[in-house]
Amino acid sequence: LSERFAQRLGEAVAQRESQIVLGLDPDPSALWPEAGGADAPAVARHCRAVIAAAGGACVAIKPQLACFERLGAAGWAALEETVAAAHEAGLLVIADGKRGDVPVTATAYAQALAALGADAFTANPLLGRDSLEPLLASERGVFVLVRTSNPGAADVQDLELASGGPLWERLARLVDELCGEGAGLADVGAVVGATRPEHLQRARELMPRAVFLLPGVGAQGGRVEDLAPAFAAGRAAGLVTASRAIVGAYREDGDDPGAAALAAAEHLREAAWSLSA
Amino acid sequence: LSERFAQRLGEAVAQRESQIVLGLDPDPSALWPEAGGADAPAVARHCRAVIAAAGGACVAIKPQLACFERLGAAGWAALEETVAAAHEAGLLVIADGKRGDVPVTATAYAQALAALGADAFTANPLLGRDSLEPLLASERGVFVLVRTSNPGAADVQDLELASGGPLWERLARLVDELCGEGAGLADVGAVVGATRPEHLQRARELMPRAVFLLPGVGAQGGRVEDLAPAFAAGRAAGLVTASRAIVGAYREDGDDPGAAALAAAEHLREAAWSLSA
Repeated sequence: LSERFAQRLGEAVAQRESQIVLGLDPDPSALWPEAGGADAPAVARHCRAVIAAAGGACVAIKPQLACFERLGAAGWAALEETVAAAHEAGLLVIADGKRGDVPVTATAYAQALAALGADAFTANPLLGRDSLEPLLASERGVFVLVRTSNPGAADVQDLELASGGPLWERLARLVDELCGEGAGLADVGAVVGATRPEHLQRARELMPRAVFLLPGVGAQGGRVEDLAPAFAAGRAAGLVTASRAIVGAYREDGDDPGAAALAAAEHLREAAWSLSA
Repeated sequence: LSERFAQRLGEAVAQRESQIVLGLDPDPSALWPEAGGADAPAVARHCRAVIAAAGGACVAIKPQLACFERLGAAGWAALEETVAAAHEAGLLVIADGKRGDVPVTATAYAQALAALGADAFTANPLLGRDSLEPLLASERGVFVLVRTSNPGAADVQDLELASGGPLWERLARLVDELCGEGAGLADVGAVVGATRPEHLQRARELMPRAVFLLPGVGAQGGRVEDLAPAFAAGRAAGLVTASRAIVGAYREDGDDPGAAALAAAEHLREAAWSLSA
């Protein structure tokens, strides 16, 4: 890789005028009709079709590794094919596996995600700093879970610490430490759910140099209009992920899947771009 | 699956007179010589040879998914072959991927691990209760991370909560809630590192019905003699995992890899079995 992730991301956002990340969570029983099947090759065809249709309004794809792994070795091959299709279309790839393990195993995960050709990946910080450092050493982007968008997130991430503040703020401080000193965006980012906008302002204060990966817009109830604090550190500082809202748009519009996906992605792209102007 | 995981585990432990879990973390550059290579098929041959040599002293294998994923689709095929070899040898399979995600994705992970044929898997609880429930619904065993064996575990898992006690004790209480009321071992277990024996007694108090998966013996400094509290709930209530200590034993003994692995596994088996008598 010739440049740091944050630099490549910044250039891609400016060039494509988009902060939208196309989430790919393929369900074999609900692929686009043109995929013609429900097996791993059909999943690959589906993902390729979604990228061809909506990729022009996006800056990256975010394949959900679980959805490919459930198809076994053939599913992993479909994932590899999807990564290749994204790169051919000029899109970055954020592998969403939320990995986290002891250092020797974290190194193996970094190797796995590098072998896949991912430009960045998501990581779980429960095992602490030494579990994240091998991922950072890969020289790819690492988005650390800080405050997720599911209701159960409150069970653990919102627990109040004796030292003050909820656990997720402590995770945010850990991310900020990993970002290090310096100017501009860091290669370490944070996953911050878009479903609780009151968290975004605080998260930005705690992590001024982190790129935020923002799930939860659309199907989970988050709204683009609430994301302004994420963009305070620059246009590339907030990446809005959407999967069902784009890939499944035709189910509500009764339109052609590709045309509906492009329209939905373009709608999100314009909303985020104008908000961050 | 005709029986609950805890029941199958209890029967297997009694029948095989072993609580040892054979960790398989294959490094392509350090396979047994008989594997004859460094690619994914060689990894599968290596794992098959390790199982054939040392499996007789063990009750389960624990493949480290990262180590297979770094070889791509062919690596996932090697993982599938390893699972099959373990089942042919009468061993249970604990897929170690430490997965954790929002409910819809957790369901996909449960499907992935079921498709793989795993009898149980490891899970990360940072996303809260709703991220674990889909894994439990799979009717397989789920070992939830509570206190891991790496030095960095202290960064997050040992944080003191405002309500009292460290975060890992709160995670232990969540595991106990998921275990539910009743007698005997539950299908929900806990990963508790063997490197800090002072945690084991407290963990057992908090999770009386959970099977403990105990990493860290051997290479990481944990000692079998310190594991007694884990076995207080019965012989099947503590599973001692070892990988380098078994698979790499020949590097210190200068012996045949298979003979050294069997001797190391048998040594651990006897130590744990006599301790839990």
